[in-house]
Amino acid sequence: MARHTDTPSIRILVCPSGFKGSLQPGTAADCIEAGILAVEPRAVVRKVPLVDGGEGFTHALVASTGGTIHRVSVTGPVGDRIDSFFGILGGNPGEPCTAVIEMAAAAGLSLVPSNQRHPGSTTTFGVGELILAALDAGASRILVGCGDSGTCDGGAGMLQALGARLLDAHGMSLPIAAGGDSLLGLASIDLSRIDDRVSKTQIDVAVNWHNVLCGPGGVANIFGPQKGATPEQTQLLSLAMETFADISSRILRDDGVRLNPGGGASGGLGTGLRLVGARLRPRYEIVMQYVNLTGIFEDCDLVLTAEGGIDDQTPRGKIPAEVARLAKKHNLPVIAIAGTIGPGARVNYDIGIDAFTCIIQRPMTLDDAVSEAERLTKESAESVMRMVEVGRMLGKNR
Amino acid sequence: MARHTDTPSIRILVCPSGFKGSLQPGTAADCIEAGILAVEPRAVVRKVPLVDGGEGFTHALVASTGGTIHRVSVTGPVGDRIDSFFGILGGNPGEPCTAVIEMAAAAGLSLVPSNQRHPGSTTTFGVGELILAALDAGASRILVGCGDSGTCDGGAGMLQALGARLLDAHGMSLPIAAGGDSLLGLASIDLSRIDDRVSKTQIDVAVNWHNVLCGPGGVANIFGPQKGATPEQTQLLSLAMETFADISSRILRDDGVRLNPGGGASGGLGTGLRLVGARLRPRYEIVMQYVNLTGIFEDCDLVLTAEGGIDDQTPRGKIPAEVARLAKKHNLPVIAIAGTIGPGARVNYDIGIDAFTCIIQRPMTLDDAVSEAERLTKESAESVMRMVEVGRMLGKNR
Repeated sequence: MARHTDTPSIRILVCPSGFKGSLQPGTAADCIEAGILAVEPRAVVRKVPLVDGGEGFTHALVASTGGTIHRVSVTGPVGDRIDSFFGILGGNPGEPCTAVIEMAAAAGLSLVPSNQRHPGSTTTFGVGELILAALDAGASRILVGCGDSGTCDGGAGMLQALGARLLDAHGMSLPIAAGGDSLLGLASIDLSRIDDRVSKTQIDVAVNWHNVLCGPGGVANIFGPQKGATPEQTQLLSLAMETFADISSRILRDDGVRLNPGGGASGGLGTGLRLVGARLRPRYEIVMQYVNLTGIFEDCDLVLTAEGGIDDQTPRGKIPAEVARLAKKHNLPVIAIAGTIGPGARVNYDIGIDAFTCIIQRPMTLDDAVSEAERLTKESAESVMRMVEVGRMLGKNR
Repeated sequence: MARHTDTPSIRILVCPSGFKGSLQPGTAADCIEAGILAVEPRAVVRKVPLVDGGEGFTHALVASTGGTIHRVSVTGPVGDRIDSFFGILGGNPGEPCTAVIEMAAAAGLSLVPSNQRHPGSTTTFGVGELILAALDAGASRILVGCGDSGTCDGGAGMLQALGARLLDAHGMSLPIAAGGDSLLGLASIDLSRIDDRVSKTQIDVAVNWHNVLCGPGGVANIFGPQKGATPEQTQLLSLAMETFADISSRILRDDGVRLNPGGGASGGLGTGLRLVGARLRPRYEIVMQYVNLTGIFEDCDLVLTAEGGIDDQTPRGKIPAEVARLAKKHNLPVIAIAGTIGPGARVNYDIGIDAFTCIIQRPMTLDDAVSEAERLTKESAESVMRMVEVGRMLGKNR
């Protein structure tokens, strides 16, 4: 740039999603940062990679807040001991100690060996153990991320780990960590022996708002086959979820449990967590609240976000749209970097995304784009930054 | 944009090349203008589409300068009468009357029926007629564009049209407009009867500096086959060019005629024009001089250019590089829009191109990119403009 050394430094908030099947959110943030600094080494870049509740959730939030990762051994989805982890967010002194748990770290599909992928028998017991570990670490607030689960037990295992007793019609306990199929025999749930720290702790659950527990669009029907269930197993599992919904409705005094938004998240874990007082929240909304993006916006000049695709669906709760919504409260410009610009992407200009661009540099295949995604994303950010710098010089000189 | 109505208007010079096989330069300029105005309706856009000397040369220069097109009937490359044209550039009162001629309008390959594509028999006679028509119209300066020719006659036909006599060893005239093959019998050229206005007129020829008349890289060998010559015909034509070079060397007292830069332009027309006092000039350099881009730069804030591909070859005389070179004399920012960003494109940051971007919006084939090029180019310009506007707001607010 001919004259950019004359312009003042710039503070940029980088909060990308990942590019599905290609870039993790943290990597996307690193690439964008590298592109910015290649143009303006004096730029102050703050990276807040944003994620859904699934794999990478804990690390992303810990990285965004300068927190810590804590390792712990728990029961895995098929009953073996596994190495797992939770996070403690960084924060200012005096703020509540906040833990972050991703259910996939204890009960994720990638932890289920491919020859054992029957979601009727996998358990969320380890998720309950992670909650206890977080409480042991002093957490007074817990954020649980749902996504990428390998289970469909309604959170039954998690409840058992916390001290609940799942009882059959004869008042006998169901087997421990036996999976969703065992809920066919469920008649009541005794929550009296739940660890008493749980009720004193604010538990928020980041869920996909579209996941419901029962019915044709319920979690067993939609995700059972993906998690390895045969049609017969899926049908049984649907019945088990109906049974679980009945019992839960009585406990929660809520007739809507079958179809509540997010109640089907992570194989019904959302509903199970409600039984111990947790609140279900749309995933991006709650994430942004926990990382205090609002505060971050006060110290920045420009926001860069990113997503695999920008199109006419983006305004419906995708990360760049949520970022733009918050940024516009502070009158901040937002530029989005996309792997793909799809039909109708122009609607995003109306919701606070001031500009967007695509990382692709030539006619190429999707496979090539995926394999070159890191370089392309960095160079795209550099290009964005260079154009912004051109504009800054022009604005300053008038 | 949230706040762009606060920013002052902006003056933008749009001087793209075409995208080969896809967008004509004028269309590219229109698309870029549309993209700019979609973002900043108050922008003052000046379009100067840039071309090599071939098809579109006259119209582009006339459009850039507010000139006029003049229609005239001439002899076509295969001897029939055709409708042709030349241009008179717009200019200020008192400036010399400047004509623009593209040789392809009288002797272009697209004027040669595909069943008559033998470059040994096609003629540039009509080019001479265009020069005479331009003189009749009062031109005191003529710019001849080379490129897209269907001839290989060393400009022999053009010379005959201006009054020259091509003589054999017996002092007998060669046939009129007989094409390059007839030059095998050339022994001398009598220039005494050339229209006497020609010597009083400044004639500049916009040529590809890499086109030479003779040798392995000579015009017959390189372009003969493209223009329809068989290997035997190409060999004969090479010999004819050698003969023509010998005679021309004597007339010009220049031993370098065989390999002079640009002497092979448009089937040797470059050398033929030298015989009547014309100067050969690298095509982009002379074009920019004629349209007085220097003056244009004085009234603008930002320059947008474009080219089918931006890569490590761009600095070697491609249009975006030439535009950047001139723009930087006025300390103006330059942004380039490309159909394709190729290997090593970063070198362009060092030669005055401040930023570049690619029109592609998703993994796609070249065919799709070509068929969507107009929309993609407009939307890319809009994206560029939106980022510049973000920067302008930031620059203004600091």
